[in-house]
Parts: sequence; structure tokens; C-alpha cells
Amino acid sequence: MARINDHYRKLAAGYLFPEIGRRVTKFCEEHPEANVIRLGIGDVTEPMPPAIAKAMHAAIDEMTVRETFRGYGPDQGYPFLRDAIVEHDYRARGIDVAADEIFVSDGSKCDSGNILDIFGPDNVVAVFDPVYPVYVDTNVMVGRTGEPDEQGRYEGLVYIPVTAENDFTPALPDREVDLIYMCYPNNPTGTVASRELLQTWVDYAKQNGAIILYDAAYEAYITDEAVPHSIYEIDGARDVAIEFRSFSKTAGFTGTRCAFTVVPKQLMGRTDSGDEFPIHSLWSRRQSTKFNNVAYVVQRGAAAVYGAEGREQVRTLVDFYLTNAKLLREGLQGVGIQVYGGVNAPYVWLKTPGDTTSWHFFDQLLQQAHLVGTPGSGFGASGEGYFRLSAFNSRENIEQAVERFSKAVA
Amino acid sequence: MARINDHYRKLAAGYLFPEIGRRVTKFCEEHPEANVIRLGIGDVTEPMPPAIAKAMHAAIDEMTVRETFRGYGPDQGYPFLRDAIVEHDYRARGIDVAADEIFVSDGSKCDSGNILDIFGPDNVVAVFDPVYPVYVDTNVMVGRTGEPDEQGRYEGLVYIPVTAENDFTPALPDREVDLIYMCYPNNPTGTVASRELLQTWVDYAKQNGAIILYDAAYEAYITDEAVPHSIYEIDGARDVAIEFRSFSKTAGFTGTRCAFTVVPKQLMGRTDSGDEFPIHSLWSRRQSTKFNNVAYVVQRGAAAVYGAEGREQVRTLVDFYLTNAKLLREGLQGVGIQVYGGVNAPYVWLKTPGDTTSWHFFDQLLQQAHLVGTPGSGFGASGEGYFRLSAFNSRENIEQAVERFSKAVA
Repeated sequence: MARINDHYRKLAAGYLFPEIGRRVTKFCEEHPEANVIRLGIGDVTEPMPPAIAKAMHAAIDEMTVRETFRGYGPDQGYPFLRDAIVEHDYRARGIDVAADEIFVSDGSKCDSGNILDIFGPDNVVAVFDPVYPVYVDTNVMVGRTGEPDEQGRYEGLVYIPVTAENDFTPALPDREVDLIYMCYPNNPTGTVASRELLQTWVDYAKQNGAIILYDAAYEAYITDEAVPHSIYEIDGARDVAIEFRSFSKTAGFTGTRCAFTVVPKQLMGRTDSGDEFPIHSLWSRRQSTKFNNVAYVVQRGAAAVYGAEGREQVRTLVDFYLTNAKLLREGLQGVGIQVYGGVNAPYVWLKTPGDTTSWHFFDQLLQQAHLVGTPGSGFGASGEGYFRLSAFNSRENIEQAVERFSKAVA
Repeated sequence: MARINDHYRKLAAGYLFPEIGRRVTKFCEEHPEANVIRLGIGDVTEPMPPAIAKAMHAAIDEMTVRETFRGYGPDQGYPFLRDAIVEHDYRARGIDVAADEIFVSDGSKCDSGNILDIFGPDNVVAVFDPVYPVYVDTNVMVGRTGEPDEQGRYEGLVYIPVTAENDFTPALPDREVDLIYMCYPNNPTGTVASRELLQTWVDYAKQNGAIILYDAAYEAYITDEAVPHSIYEIDGARDVAIEFRSFSKTAGFTGTRCAFTVVPKQLMGRTDSGDEFPIHSLWSRRQSTKFNNVAYVVQRGAAAVYGAEGREQVRTLVDFYLTNAKLLREGLQGVGIQVYGGVNAPYVWLKTPGDTTSWHFFDQLLQQAHLVGTPGSGFGASGEGYFRLSAFNSRENIEQAVERFSKAVA
């Protein structure tokens, strides 16, 4: 008799965004005349930069000629892409990463979930709270937690609050943890980590033999020169950290799918018998057995992000969303809302006015202003009383959103 | 202290194809003048059909315009692709499959590995022997086996021999099993399953509450009208089977990456407490949490496979490889080699002459004829004494290969 993975039954009924979708659909059905502006899910809206399209067109033409046709590509991704990544994302900043430490993939969401395959069941996992729900859900799915409590906190996970009360500075855990998820620039709070903060965590990981899973999907949005772009800018990080990067938000690839994960060759885990074992070889085995990498055409598109034209066009794209974030941030501040993030990140994290709960504020904003955002409590118990707005939208919609928001709050 | 998934250490040092790669590279370095023909890995060689390229070019152009740009797509894939699949692959054959039972993905290898996420650890798994190595390795990785024996058979898996001795007809297992991998047309043997054989297994699954994982990646190569294209042509299969399909070998997508998995809504597993639970909802949760589907551009290319031009061009492509298979098959038979498969499949499975082991024959063929194939023993203990040749190559290389083979064996 085929038995299911019973851990799935511990999961809350749905992933956050489908629930938002349901409420918005219901509202739109009841108010077909309403022009709803969606600042909920962090999905890009602006067209693909021409340099990327050009590279993809050329790659398709190569595919139609026998001599330049490509079948299965290299397991870790094409060298032309991995070399470009190393040169522009790392070497240009003086960071030591080798091309064979890069694993090209179809998304950071996939990688941050799949990476759990290579770790044993008895690791203690720490997440910040609020947190990107995928980190939590994928740990529930593999059975590394018990049931959730009333606030949605799963037994067995170590939650580290990151709120205005502690100035969005996560304190080191009060019990030993083995795997630590960090996301900077942060989703959902839009805040960044200073070099000192990262050093504190890297030192902790080193002392405890822990591994940091560092999600830098929003790295391109960093404007402040003092803020590290990569965990590997921190002393000792190559011994303790895996880094996830993505083209989704950098180059508008949410519908084109390309990302990469960096696993330093010196990064070690422990076997059951206590010996050191290289994480790189495990991830390599996992990916070559369960994955076949990304379309050649897409890898060519991703590589074009690093060309002279591509770099300029992608910079323009990121600046466009950053200006949106600035408009949102300043617009909300102008009507007395307490706002965080939105400077080195495409997300604005706001304190809901008064004692309004996140979901109540969601409903209010939808009803009164026809605006969709994401309830902070959907990202964890410590997100209660907060609300996330995404800067991914047209300028017109952002300006309109600020206007409506001001009226609704006033 | 971060602990690794120790089950990975049970895996044989490498996946089969990297080992072949190492031996071929060594030979080529020692014999730089040799013109080695590779009939090992099953990778397509002929150019992308023009209808697919046209659709992908058009999709890229859509991406460069704000109004038609696409970000995140639907979790299960775009309706235009799922509808085309249902219409052409299923409804046209009178098979009952709905569009919301289709999950578009980036490869059958990925899906057949990832599907294990949704099943409990204590299921007993049956594989045919020889077998596509991914089925075995992914079960080892999740800890559903013990150590391998000297012939590479892992403790805990149920191996069902499929050889010339039993006319490549797998007997029902002599102990109860819960998950059953079936692959037809078969990789590696190139043989097919009759309607009666499939009915026997579907009935077994139904009686035992087992689930069949049916890999039909080579379905397009079926030429015999009596051979079922889908497990769902068999009575009762919707209650017991998941089907994997791929564009890789059908439409030359090994480097473009698109596939799909069918999960009937009525397919049930059991919870720990013995209740029925829909597998569809589990796979949906798994995919929406750990995957973001396939590039819009690629999905448009896949949909073009079902257009009038696409269907004709893809048929021509498949016929080309089938003619290659016929040439291989008949060429080998002509010099007295016992050959199987190669009629409804792009693989020819041959008995090595005399008592030669598979790897010895591999080395011989490489040294004497500069030909690369795949040792049967690499697919399992029962593959010892067999050898796989792939029909994926140019006509010239296939003809050359037959000539060299004949000389080497004569």
C-alpha cells in the first residue's frame, strides 16, 4: 500500500500567495469595475532588456543548425555563463569564487528547497522571523519539524525575531543550530545586513560547525557602498556558507528562469560517524542525478546580462524599480506611516497603523484603496502588525498606489 | 554541527555516464587521431524543427514588450500548453486526462526523482533490472535502501529481472511492493509492453494499493499500432498510475528542457493512519513550493510541437532516428549479433558475443572500432552481458558505426 509523506499534512492549507490570490479574485468578482493595483507578489513587470532578447534569438538560431545545435549541456551549466558570473559578480569585487563552484539552476526557490536533500534529518534549523515561507515549508516537508502552534510556528525550528524592536538585527540563537537561513537584502523586510552583522554570524557558524544558507536574490538592489553584496566578502565565509543568486529580480527573469548557487569546495559537513565530508560533492551528485540544468537558450540570455549592453540595460531596470521603491517609501512616510526597507531592496515593509492586524489591513486596503499587498503575518508570527509592498510595477501604478494609500490612511 | 545526508555515501562513486566519459576522454587523449563515434548517452543530435524555433522567436519578441511580457507563470504550466497536451497526446487517442492533471516541468529525470518527496520512507520499491539508474539512485539518496551488494543491487529494493531469458516480460513481484517504476518503450532495452502486460501490472497495483510510476519518455517512437502509448489506455490505470512524458527525445528538447507529469485526481495514497489522501494535492504542493515551472519561451516552443507544422516536423525527426535504429539493428543482425529493441524505440540492446562482460565489450569496441556504447551492467546486474547502442546520431555516423562494428566483430 503506497504511503504518502505524512509531513505534508502539517503544512498550513496553502502557500501565502494563493490565499492572497483567492481574496483578490473574490473582491474583483464582487467589484468588476475596480482597477486593482497589485503590489503583493514580488513579480517583475518591465520588458526583457534588448541585449538579453538578442542573445536568446541568436541562441535559437544556433539550435536550428546541426553544427551548432546543443543537446544536454554540462551538469553545472555552460562555462560561458559560469565564467561570466565569476568575473562580474565575484572577481570584480575581489571575491574568491571559482567557476566550478557555481551551479547554474532554474531558480533560487528551487535551490533553497532542494538543498535540504543533502543534509541529514537531525540538523537543527534556524530561520529569521518574518521569513520567506519556502525555507520553513520545505523543512516541514522533509520532516524536520513537529506541528505548528497557534501562531504558525513549527515545533523544532528555531525562530529568530527580526523586528523594529531589535532594529532588524537578528540576535545569535540561544541554542545550538546547524543550518541557518539568511536572506539579504531581506525578503520581506527590505532591510540589509552590515558587514559586522554578517561577520558575527559567520563566526558563530565557524565555532559551531553550522552552515549558512545565504539567499542573495536581491543583491542587485544594493545601492549603499558599505553593504556587502556576497557573504563571501566576509572573512571565513567560504568555510561555512552556500550562496544563492538569481536572475529573476536582477534581470527580470521570473518568467525566464535562471539562477545559480555557489558551493565553495572547502565547505564541509559531518557524516554520521563525525568525519568531514565536502558539501560540493554532495550537491554535484544531487544535481547531476535529479536535474538536467537550464535551456541553452536561457543560459545565453543570462550570460548577456554580463555584456556591456546587458549590464547597462539591467542597471536601468533595477534603478527603475528602486525609484518605485523610493516613491512608495517617501509617499507612505509623507502620510505618517512608519516604513522600513525600500532603499537597498525592492520591498517596503510598513508598520500597520494603530493595532491593525496584517490581514485586517490587507482587507481594508483592498476594499478602500483597491490595493494589494502582502500581510506581514504571512511571513511569520513576528511579521504580525507589518505589511509588505512590492516595488515591482509600472511607474503609473506606483504613483497611483501612493495617492490611493494616502487617501485611505488619511 | 551540520550533518550531511549519509545515504549519499551508499551511492556508487559516479553516475554511469560520467564513468563512460572518463574512459572515452582517456582513449581520445591517447589516440588523438581517432574519429570516435558516440552511441552511448541518449542525446539528440539533429537541429530544432523550424516550427519550434519560430514559436520561441515570437515568444522572445513578446517578452520585450511591456504589454505582452510574462513574469511568473501558472504553477502547473500555461493552459495553452496543457490544453494542447490533453488534446493531442490523450483525447486524440480516446484517453481521459484533464488539463489540471498535467504538471509541466523541466524534465522527466527531475520529476521521476522529485516525485519521491511526496511518498513516505517505508514504501517498498520495485524496479526492473536493467533499469534507468536515476530510479535507483534517487531511492538510495532518500534512504529507502541499505548498502549495495557486489553486483550493485541495493538492499531493500525489489529487483525484477527483464532479460532475454524471460522474453523481457517482467514477472509480478513475489513480495508486496508499494511503488513500481515502469518505463516503456524501455530504456535501456528498447522493448515495449503489450496491453496485456500492462493490464497485469495495473491489476496488481489495484489489488495491493500500489502506485505505478510510468515513464513514457520514448512514447513518440512507438510504431506498432498494438502497443499502448499511455498507461491510461489500460483499464483502472487512472486509479494507480502517474505518467511521465518528455519533449526531450520526441522533439529534440534535451538542451531546451520541457516535460510533463500526469497525476490523475482520483489517484490516492495512504496516510500513516490509513486514510486515503489525494496524490494530486501533494504533487501540486511540492511543485508550487519547490519549483517555478519552465520559461514562457520554452513552453511556447513545446506547444508548437502540437501545431500542424510542428507535428509534421517532429514526426520527420522521430522517423529519422527510427531509421537509424533500424540500420543499427539490421546491420548487427547481419553479422550474427543477437539484437533486441530498436523497433519502437531509439535504443538497440544487444547480447555481447560469447561470454564477454559488458565493460570488457565496451573497452574492446572503443579500442578496435572507436565506437562508444553503454555497458548493460551499468543499468543493473541483469544487464551484464548486454550492451546498449543509441540511435541518436547523424545518418553518416550510424552507417559508419555499422561498418566498423561489422569489422570488429567479424
